[in-house]
Amino acid sequence: MREGTLLYAQSGGVTAVINATASGVIQAARKRKVRVLAGRNGILGVLREELVDTSSLDAAAVKGLAHTPGGAFGSCRFKLKSLDADRARYERLLAVFQAHDVRWFLYNGGNDSADTALKVSQLAAASGYELACIGVPKTVDNDLALTDCCPGFGSAAKYTAVSVAEAALDVAAMADTSTKVFVYEVMGRHAGWLAAAGGLAGRGPDQAPHIILFPEIPFEEATFLARVRATVDRVGYCVIVVSEGLHGPDGRFLAETGGSVDAFGHAQLGGVGPLLAGLVKAKLGVKVHWTVPDYLQRSARHLASKTDLDQALAVGKAAVAYALAGQNGVMPIIQRLTSRPYTWRIVPAPLEKIANHEKKMPANFITPDGYGISAACRRYLEPLIAGEAPPPYGPGGIPAYVQPRLKLLRKRLPAWDPAAH
Amino acid sequence: MREGTLLYAQSGGVTAVINATASGVIQAARKRKVRVLAGRNGILGVLREELVDTSSLDAAAVKGLAHTPGGAFGSCRFKLKSLDADRARYERLLAVFQAHDVRWFLYNGGNDSADTALKVSQLAAASGYELACIGVPKTVDNDLALTDCCPGFGSAAKYTAVSVAEAALDVAAMADTSTKVFVYEVMGRHAGWLAAAGGLAGRGPDQAPHIILFPEIPFEEATFLARVRATVDRVGYCVIVVSEGLHGPDGRFLAETGGSVDAFGHAQLGGVGPLLAGLVKAKLGVKVHWTVPDYLQRSARHLASKTDLDQALAVGKAAVAYALAGQNGVMPIIQRLTSRPYTWRIVPAPLEKIANHEKKMPANFITPDGYGISAACRRYLEPLIAGEAPPPYGPGGIPAYVQPRLKLLRKRLPAWDPAAH
Repeated sequence: MREGTLLYAQSGGVTAVINATASGVIQAARKRKVRVLAGRNGILGVLREELVDTSSLDAAAVKGLAHTPGGAFGSCRFKLKSLDADRARYERLLAVFQAHDVRWFLYNGGNDSADTALKVSQLAAASGYELACIGVPKTVDNDLALTDCCPGFGSAAKYTAVSVAEAALDVAAMADTSTKVFVYEVMGRHAGWLAAAGGLAGRGPDQAPHIILFPEIPFEEATFLARVRATVDRVGYCVIVVSEGLHGPDGRFLAETGGSVDAFGHAQLGGVGPLLAGLVKAKLGVKVHWTVPDYLQRSARHLASKTDLDQALAVGKAAVAYALAGQNGVMPIIQRLTSRPYTWRIVPAPLEKIANHEKKMPANFITPDGYGISAACRRYLEPLIAGEAPPPYGPGGIPAYVQPRLKLLRKRLPAWDPAAH
Repeated sequence: MREGTLLYAQSGGVTAVINATASGVIQAARKRKVRVLAGRNGILGVLREELVDTSSLDAAAVKGLAHTPGGAFGSCRFKLKSLDADRARYERLLAVFQAHDVRWFLYNGGNDSADTALKVSQLAAASGYELACIGVPKTVDNDLALTDCCPGFGSAAKYTAVSVAEAALDVAAMADTSTKVFVYEVMGRHAGWLAAAGGLAGRGPDQAPHIILFPEIPFEEATFLARVRATVDRVGYCVIVVSEGLHGPDGRFLAETGGSVDAFGHAQLGGVGPLLAGLVKAKLGVKVHWTVPDYLQRSARHLASKTDLDQALAVGKAAVAYALAGQNGVMPIIQRLTSRPYTWRIVPAPLEKIANHEKKMPANFITPDGYGISAACRRYLEPLIAGEAPPPYGPGGIPAYVQPRLKLLRKRLPAWDPAAH
């Protein structure tokens, strides 16, 4: 094996278990005596040459990362464009790699990050700089191609299923004189995976959730309202799970804020829950409550899925193994072998087949009426939320999450000039 | 001990542990060979003579109630007025009690319910009907007088502290390029106990939450915005916990919906979180996210506080003991003996000193600047969220909550006519 440094960076929205992947990376690299640097705030930290020296973290801190949500080294929303459009930035990355003898680059993110990792590897090859680039999967949206599921999703899915089940018991108890319709808004811009997870809270037409609104299915107001009314009449109350990405027949997001976009060029969403609640109240005249868990659903490490945690650790360890074995332009993905019992393994997949693809729910995962999940979907989802992996709690009653002090390496290059690069 | 039946009813908003109190009641009564009926949907079920025969619940179901959120027998928002104004309804209650030989009435709720229990006991005494009425404390708002705390609050407080801590780690990881201000809306109409619980997520001025907005402190926009700006500049991000009951210097709720009131005559709230988020975005121009957990915070049995669960069970058992000992017009309350270590006991307190009172946060629990919790507040709160009491989980990854089938007693009286009563 050649000498060199391994660089790890987190990208995009963090999850309950992305730090577990980081922990897996550091543990695996230490076993192989390889030094690990981490980008401070993701790829931006690499451009700025703000690199964390993880060798200053003791074993307890590295272990503690596996039960700590958020992104310990910082993440960022910062998308590099094509090699042609952003060449100066890609070259800056390579310059930083060279300055610190980085020979293995592990980029932990979604499909945008897979694209960046792929382009960095192409530029390195063209420049004759020996570098292995590995994408490491992560996203609560579960929308990466090829892999059976994405680390981070299982825990957010478990949080959603449990929270819907709990809130539904509350609503059921009060419906006689109080709230009759409850709206639960989940994340998921274009893919309804988290909305589907809400469906695990119950079974059959009378158990909550009674209606799931997927981004894959255009919203029809009249049909929806009729279904809410029928459910309230039949069951006494109605629990609705709605994806933030719900859109109308015209393709526009219901909650579109009108031109506000994030750094990746996606429309910034939020608020379809209260919007639907207002609609139901106005049209049906019943008492409505709504919730928007927002970041709680992707940071709820206290309710992590054991399956998800195991997979998050495994992809981190596999990424190191692939890198050190000289694999390049690949991502360790999860391959399902059987559903019942659930068995899986990690295998490498080419980044070019993952970059910029977005995996939506297959049509057969949604019931024909468009408002629920099918048996096939349940069979797919259930193992992903199975098992509990609670963090240790402190005497004060909250989890003992770690917040390691980050020691930055001394810079070796001139400061990065975002305007010039 | 005289013969007779014990009637238990749940009232007002349910909690993560009110069923634990029900479980404690049924267990204690069974030990004394006393039959327990439960009002279907609270006091309304009594008026309607819809009484659940709990003897049909097997031991496993009764035990399971202790780990199941919501209200297993149904609760209601239905407030009886004064004896004079609502005499026909009070008399109907007594008629139902007589028809089923109810000699012990346990009403599990907040200060409105304490008031109802007190009035029923007064009417029974005036009518010469032997009846012991016991109030049993419950409210996530923690606003009952005399008792050290209220069952239900500790678990909602733990949920809030943990969720704020987790979301803060998410925001910290992303703040460089994404969300800089995060707003977390908690329940608490007039008392800031749950907002204060959010303060347990961190310590010191740089740890989240950086700002807590209490209903006890009138909101001042300019001071607030300056503090948000200063926090973002100093820490890089700002986490705000805001009570739904925040009001302006004019005394009006910030989120007042204009005339919409619940059955108790309280203004219906919700939405101060997004409102503040919009304000920050408009005035400071930074990216903002917000969450409104709504019912999730009071139904999150998966994250119950062990202290809270123990107390919820204890007040249920004590209520039975008091009733069977012939005590009347009292409530089992929690008396704190020491804070460190936390020790407590259950003692009886007169309902007349609890009915219709509302315990706000003491002034010395809020820091002089009005935006945080004091050391005294922390000392008070910490033991209440201490300890974990997770429910058993099923193989499908969600808790094995029980939903017992409720068997109603055959009616012995003419139907209740709400118009006539």
